[in-house]
Amino acid sequence: MSIITDINIAYIGGGSRDWARKLMSDLAFEPRISGQVALYDIDKKAAKQNEKLGNLISNRPEAKSHWEYVAVDTLDEALENADFVIISILPGTFQEMNIDVHLPEKYGIYQSVGDTVGFGGHMRALRAIPMMVEFAEKIREIAPDAWVINYTNPMSICTRTLYRVFPEIKAIGYCHEVFGTQNLLAHMVRDMLGIEKPERHEIKVNILGINHFTWINHANYQEVDLFPLYEQFAERYYESGYEESKDEWKKSVFGSCNRVKFDLFQQYGWIAAAGDRHLAEFVPEVYLKDPETVEEWKFRLTPVSWRIADRREKVKQIQQIVNGEEKVELVSSGEEGIGIILGLLGLHDFVTNVNLPNKGQIANLPHDVIVETNAFIQKDRIQPIYAGELPLDIKNVITTHVNNQEAIVTGMLTENKRLLFNAFRNEPVAKYLTKDEVRQLYTEMLAKTSSYLPDWLL
Amino acid sequence: MSIITDINIAYIGGGSRDWARKLMSDLAFEPRISGQVALYDIDKKAAKQNEKLGNLISNRPEAKSHWEYVAVDTLDEALENADFVIISILPGTFQEMNIDVHLPEKYGIYQSVGDTVGFGGHMRALRAIPMMVEFAEKIREIAPDAWVINYTNPMSICTRTLYRVFPEIKAIGYCHEVFGTQNLLAHMVRDMLGIEKPERHEIKVNILGINHFTWINHANYQEVDLFPLYEQFAERYYESGYEESKDEWKKSVFGSCNRVKFDLFQQYGWIAAAGDRHLAEFVPEVYLKDPETVEEWKFRLTPVSWRIADRREKVKQIQQIVNGEEKVELVSSGEEGIGIILGLLGLHDFVTNVNLPNKGQIANLPHDVIVETNAFIQKDRIQPIYAGELPLDIKNVITTHVNNQEAIVTGMLTENKRLLFNAFRNEPVAKYLTKDEVRQLYTEMLAKTSSYLPDWLL
Amino acid sequence: MSIITDINIAYIGGGSRDWARKLMSDLAFEPRISGQVALYDIDKKAAKQNEKLGNLISNRPEAKSHWEYVAVDTLDEALENADFVIISILPGTFQEMNIDVHLPEKYGIYQSVGDTVGFGGHMRALRAIPMMVEFAEKIREIAPDAWVINYTNPMSICTRTLYRVFPEIKAIGYCHEVFGTQNLLAHMVRDMLGIEKPERHEIKVNILGINHFTWINHANYQEVDLFPLYEQFAERYYESGYEESKDEWKKSVFGSCNRVKFDLFQQYGWIAAAGDRHLAEFVPEVYLKDPETVEEWKFRLTPVSWRIADRREKVKQIQQIVNGEEKVELVSSGEEGIGIILGLLGLHDFVTNVNLPNKGQIANLPHDVIVETNAFIQKDRIQPIYAGELPLDIKNVITTHVNNQEAIVTGMLTENKRLLFNAFRNEPVAKYLTKDEVRQLYTEMLAKTSSYLPDWLL
Amino acid sequence: MSIITDINIAYIGGGSRDWARKLMSDLAFEPRISGQVALYDIDKKAAKQNEKLGNLISNRPEAKSHWEYVAVDTLDEALENADFVIISILPGTFQEMNIDVHLPEKYGIYQSVGDTVGFGGHMRALRAIPMMVEFAEKIREIAPDAWVINYTNPMSICTRTLYRVFPEIKAIGYCHEVFGTQNLLAHMVRDMLGIEKPERHEIKVNILGINHFTWINHANYQEVDLFPLYEQFAERYYESGYEESKDEWKKSVFGSCNRVKFDLFQQYGWIAAAGDRHLAEFVPEVYLKDPETVEEWKFRLTPVSWRIADRREKVKQIQQIVNGEEKVELVSSGEEGIGIILGLLGLHDFVTNVNLPNKGQIANLPHDVIVETNAFIQKDRIQPIYAGELPLDIKNVITTHVNNQEAIVTGMLTENKRLLFNAFRNEPVAKYLTKDEVRQLYTEMLAKTSSYLPDWLL
Repeated sequence: MSIITDINIAYIGGGSRDWARKLMSDLAFEPRISGQVALYDIDKKAAKQNEKLGNLISNRPEAKSHWEYVAVDTLDEALENADFVIISILPGTFQEMNIDVHLPEKYGIYQSVGDTVGFGGHMRALRAIPMMVEFAEKIREIAPDAWVINYTNPMSICTRTLYRVFPEIKAIGYCHEVFGTQNLLAHMVRDMLGIEKPERHEIKVNILGINHFTWINHANYQEVDLFPLYEQFAERYYESGYEESKDEWKKSVFGSCNRVKFDLFQQYGWIAAAGDRHLAEFVPEVYLKDPETVEEWKFRLTPVSWRIADRREKVKQIQQIVNGEEKVELVSSGEEGIGIILGLLGLHDFVTNVNLPNKGQIANLPHDVIVETNAFIQKDRIQPIYAGELPLDIKNVITTHVNNQEAIVTGMLTENKRLLFNAFRNEPVAKYLTKDEVRQLYTEMLAKTSSYLPDWLL
Repeated sequence: MSIITDINIAYIGGGSRDWARKLMSDLAFEPRISGQVALYDIDKKAAKQNEKLGNLISNRPEAKSHWEYVAVDTLDEALENADFVIISILPGTFQEMNIDVHLPEKYGIYQSVGDTVGFGGHMRALRAIPMMVEFAEKIREIAPDAWVINYTNPMSICTRTLYRVFPEIKAIGYCHEVFGTQNLLAHMVRDMLGIEKPERHEIKVNILGINHFTWINHANYQEVDLFPLYEQFAERYYESGYEESKDEWKKSVFGSCNRVKFDLFQQYGWIAAAGDRHLAEFVPEVYLKDPETVEEWKFRLTPVSWRIADRREKVKQIQQIVNGEEKVELVSSGEEGIGIILGLLGLHDFVTNVNLPNKGQIANLPHDVIVETNAFIQKDRIQPIYAGELPLDIKNVITTHVNNQEAIVTGMLTENKRLLFNAFRNEPVAKYLTKDEVRQLYTEMLAKTSSYLPDWLL
Repeated sequence: MSIITDINIAYIGGGSRDWARKLMSDLAFEPRISGQVALYDIDKKAAKQNEKLGNLISNRPEAKSHWEYVAVDTLDEALENADFVIISILPGTFQEMNIDVHLPEKYGIYQSVGDTVGFGGHMRALRAIPMMVEFAEKIREIAPDAWVINYTNPMSICTRTLYRVFPEIKAIGYCHEVFGTQNLLAHMVRDMLGIEKPERHEIKVNILGINHFTWINHANYQEVDLFPLYEQFAERYYESGYEESKDEWKKSVFGSCNRVKFDLFQQYGWIAAAGDRHLAEFVPEVYLKDPETVEEWKFRLTPVSWRIADRREKVKQIQQIVNGEEKVELVSSGEEGIGIILGLLGLHDFVTNVNLPNKGQIANLPHDVIVETNAFIQKDRIQPIYAGELPLDIKNVITTHVNNQEAIVTGMLTENKRLLFNAFRNEPVAKYLTKDEVRQLYTEMLAKTSSYLPDWLL
Repeated sequence: MSIITDINIAYIGGGSRDWARKLMSDLAFEPRISGQVALYDIDKKAAKQNEKLGNLISNRPEAKSHWEYVAVDTLDEALENADFVIISILPGTFQEMNIDVHLPEKYGIYQSVGDTVGFGGHMRALRAIPMMVEFAEKIREIAPDAWVINYTNPMSICTRTLYRVFPEIKAIGYCHEVFGTQNLLAHMVRDMLGIEKPERHEIKVNILGINHFTWINHANYQEVDLFPLYEQFAERYYESGYEESKDEWKKSVFGSCNRVKFDLFQQYGWIAAAGDRHLAEFVPEVYLKDPETVEEWKFRLTPVSWRIADRREKVKQIQQIVNGEEKVELVSSGEEGIGIILGLLGLHDFVTNVNLPNKGQIANLPHDVIVETNAFIQKDRIQPIYAGELPLDIKNVITTHVNNQEAIVTGMLTENKRLLFNAFRNEPVAKYLTKDEVRQLYTEMLAKTSSYLPDWLL
């Protein structure tokens, strides 16, 4: 067995309360690689805490490899000698996210997540793009050969920005949303065929679309084509929704029971492969008309207040661990980040869904925009797998969002205020407002998130 | 001077009360060509009347060439030996158009024309496409080398259908909407520069977009760049609108005073080159919210009842001429149809705006969809002139419609009901309705226009 | 373990003395699938013999699954219910191949194989294309959902023809040439690193090019990048060539010792991934100037007389087995045909190099022409993996051949004699002849292979 | 009539003995524009002489407008305030050109011009590209809005370099070669139809190809299609060639009598639209095998010694004019440079053939490479006219040269010696030499022209 030591990982957003900890566990469980993780965060205190947390985890007896965690003061230090760069940040704070998600409610516009498309996604992008520009420039300068894994939303826009600034960057956008749908299909196999639930990764899927609005056009479990099965499944659970235990969806602010997915299947004939809360935001006129409609479709609007409270809780918990008041548990996350890293090191072949510039892997979306498909990962290369064509109706809905995303990125990179405002006006939800209302809302959202925006934009 | 005799023109929709008559006059005024016009119409009586009318016109002393008009019974006869085919039909009758335009008003949706995009354009397309399929098939069979000039709306969809069915067809879609904007610019030159109004054709423009939502990104009169001038002009007349005499727009059901054009200029920075009634339908959320909004933007919703009455009037008038009760006047139409024909015969070089499959003349719209740009016309060829790129914001709005058009054509040609309904749902105006309302409206519109629809669609 | 029975394989060219037998062994060794193989061949006697041979093999005690072999009389019968279609034919006989390869020697033009490009490849294509047209038409009619695996040369041209005739065909071209280079790299790992020789499939490569002129731009064995190693390896063995035992290359008419590969590496910086005899034909001005040059580069010109003798031998051998005079041995072929079939049945994920229409997997070759890259195989789908761009110098040499291939296919499908002759004249080797010599040679080659050519071409 | 004064023209290569003088005459004859011409040349004395010559011409009584000529010392001065930039230089001196053209003769390789493709074109490009880089950078800095008209060969490579360095440059490559073929067609009209010879510009053509290997696929004179006529014409004069008076071709080192053109027509079915000397260099294996072959095809190899002598003559003549010893004659040049300038100023619409980056005007050549087609010129814009597709056989021959050109430009801009040498090896003529001969010749040509080459290349 090959063992590679001295791997350097730069973690931008290293004060993360959530993703960072998952990575720490996953690294600890992997015997084939070891090295150092540099944690960089504008919240230095958080990075410092994670340094301690990471080292505690790495020193647990169940850990199979040793990693050293170091909080660093600057982005430059983090990137020095990096083999891998992980970008997992919150663009701004939850105060800004609160504006993204909830200010539009004044005009009757509701958002279930608010970080991808729609007014919330737009505003979040305005904050995230300048940060990504900085990261891309520094990576070009200090670590041009490093592999960059971005977890930050809006995923497509962030990843696109990295490539616009540094076209030779070796970056992917990575997101686990598809796994949920693979899991749903695994449950379906059990439910409909009466056999044991397969593992998620045994559900083979072909993926095509854009992040959070990704689609499956082929799915099989061994020799069984899952499409005819899904048709019955979606029919059977169309009204009730499908969930593992009744009304579970009501218990979590992230809850849903797949009714949106079933409805999209009946409309389009393909399986949408993201959580209902994300999917709904791409077709807001149907699923997000008002809170009653959302209730009917059985999913939840996630309030930012919940996120704030949850974060407080996690900060406390990590503090307790760091203080030695609580024991740290190692739990494998089910994420595939480590699998990607192992693949890039040449330690195994690996296929998973990632976000990459379109090189034709989706034949009828524009070149270069960020799309999500399967990719084949080998030593030092990630190559998208040709995924085929979208049917015109799905393509047309996706294209509206692809177009808005491209306009936002271009608007920010070229300081073109007209383009940005017209992209905001071109959001499907803007159609419900008058010209003046759109203008007012835009102005107010800008003003209230202005501390994270460049001057020329205000 | 070359003189070409024995030219055969097939006129599909030869019972036309309007366009046919313009053509007759224009042909009579042109000394360099003569020949025969075969008039074909499902309304045979109308064609027969036009035969008489045409021959009366041709025999007028002021006529400079001789044309023989013949009403024929079948499409085949019309196409036999045709050098040129003109397609100028009404897909269905005004009864169906009444449904297209006015039924959606039940749901609060208003349309100023209703023949291009939106619910009205969609339904009209469903009727027109099978007719175009028939024409294309017959042309391929009987007159594959003829030049086909289509005047029928929805222009992009009809022309696209001709090419989908018979890819080698020598067809263009021809529309005079751009002339109105050239005229407006000529007026502007007089108004702003205090010089004599130039001729329309002296206003040089670069055209790019899709029919009825075409844009100008360069305009000059001799060495004068007209864009800085238009910026002032649009500002000056933004509130009042610009018209030659006050409140003229109220007098005609086709009236407008360019406020929509000025507003689009301020939003996008390019000059929209179609009548306000057409332009408004591509951005209905702004200009067509309700009749009050329309009033405010100072343009008219054209009721189909007016068209019915007007037609009755024209029929009567032609009847009187044919009966010898009224004298026929020869008036040059200002249209460029004859100019195109002369160009195709090699008698002059000619540049004008036409609708053609995109071969890259608009760099950032998809290949093969029908776009409107200038083209260079020489003997037996029409070649689009590279027009450049659309700015992303205009491109994005256009793309929504291009996508819907492509879905409609494809849906009809492949008998894909899902695609058609999803295209209907993807119309911007559909966003104001609930899922159920869209379904109801669609079903009702289909039912009420069913005599012109194929069985599989119902 | 899933076991799939009742699989139907149609084998076109089922009288094959070589490939058929390999397949029989490989099928016998695979426990997870079983079914029937229909053998179709214009040489019915050969197919009948293979029926017997196949059933003998299937009944061997070491066989792990049962397959029934049936020689059928018509292509239609073979295709009936086929799940897989294998095409492995000789276009014409060795008499024609004799003309392909050796007639040009009259003009001083030598060919090492003569079945891919050059004058020999051209003539072979003229015979193969009409056969492929027939196969594609029949497959469309009788077995449109079957997976088609083509082994026939000229590979790119044959596969392209299948897609031109039936664009929805599920076909790949499959060739084992790349394996030889993987093996060379495995030897190199042993030779240069002093470790045990890895298995061929442990040498990971990224493949891009066209069949028999394929290139590797990345190769690794676990975490080791093999390119720096290959640079030293090519240098070390540049003069002597590399072979397992000295002067082995002289012993076989297929012999070579990789000097061409090393020279191409020094010229272009990438690893050519086919046997030297094939590679040489794409750059004949360097490696095939005359027999002395060939000798210097240490590879063999394979005479067709050898093929004729060898075939006679194989026929005899099979006859003896069928007569029970000799025992049949089951030997795993090392080919990946079965791996592909298992992948297409959903029984495993599989990545290998195949020939497919370019959907962008090679970014800077034209769309739709047949290219060779890795592909990802899952249940009922084969998806090319994005392989990147060729450097301009390699691209330019490949393009000459891609262009000729496209002209040949188009010329045959549209019965365009001018295009065909101009493609012949555009072969690099034609540059050494005068205009008249090219014409004479072409005419003579056509005449002497005319029994397999369509009338319009003569 | 609009009159525009104060136009600034920068003439790079302003010491030109030929093109500069033509421009001076043409400017003098044009009453609608006047201004200043800044003459810049590394041969300052020549520029100074041209300053005097220009002012003499401008002061002639027959001059209709006034232009002031000023020799300037630096490129920067020349570009200051330039509205138009003309680039018309000799890359290096005739000494280097002598190497380009005649050194390969040592290896039996003959060139009729040696400035476009082949070994001569390659070497000239190596010298020209760095100069074009400098011009493009300066234009970007000092005159980014100026229109740039390049006359320098190798045309495609020079113009491509300008765009590679400064993608927003407003540049065209302009060449009069097509006019000769229009003239030939005009002669043909007289010869074959027995009518008066039309004016060159009355011969309407559609142009597509690359500079000096441009093709006509449609030609008409008024309503007459000239293709059937040309077929007879080429047949009739195939053996003898066509010229206005017998054996005229022998009298000039630029002589030819269109046999190459007739032969290309018979091979490809389209009309090649350049002089035979240029055309021959694209298919050297047919027309340039050796001096006897050239003689047979009845065109001349232009020796550089003639150019040297001719230049000496012209220098003397200008000196005499400048000294007042000889009177200067104003002769309209028949060139279209002024027509282009007038078009760009908005003073007329103008269509002519120009070299521009391919935006799709030739559907089956790559985007962005420089192609020659008709373009439509209006105020401040030049827009290529869609010219269609090349037939595969012509396309394939052109592509070889397009590919080499792209490799040369890329090799120079990225300092990639491998790419450059491989481009040299990929010239069709390199096929006649051994690997070693190519290397020797290349090395010698580099060495003997090294004073105009960058250090890294040597």
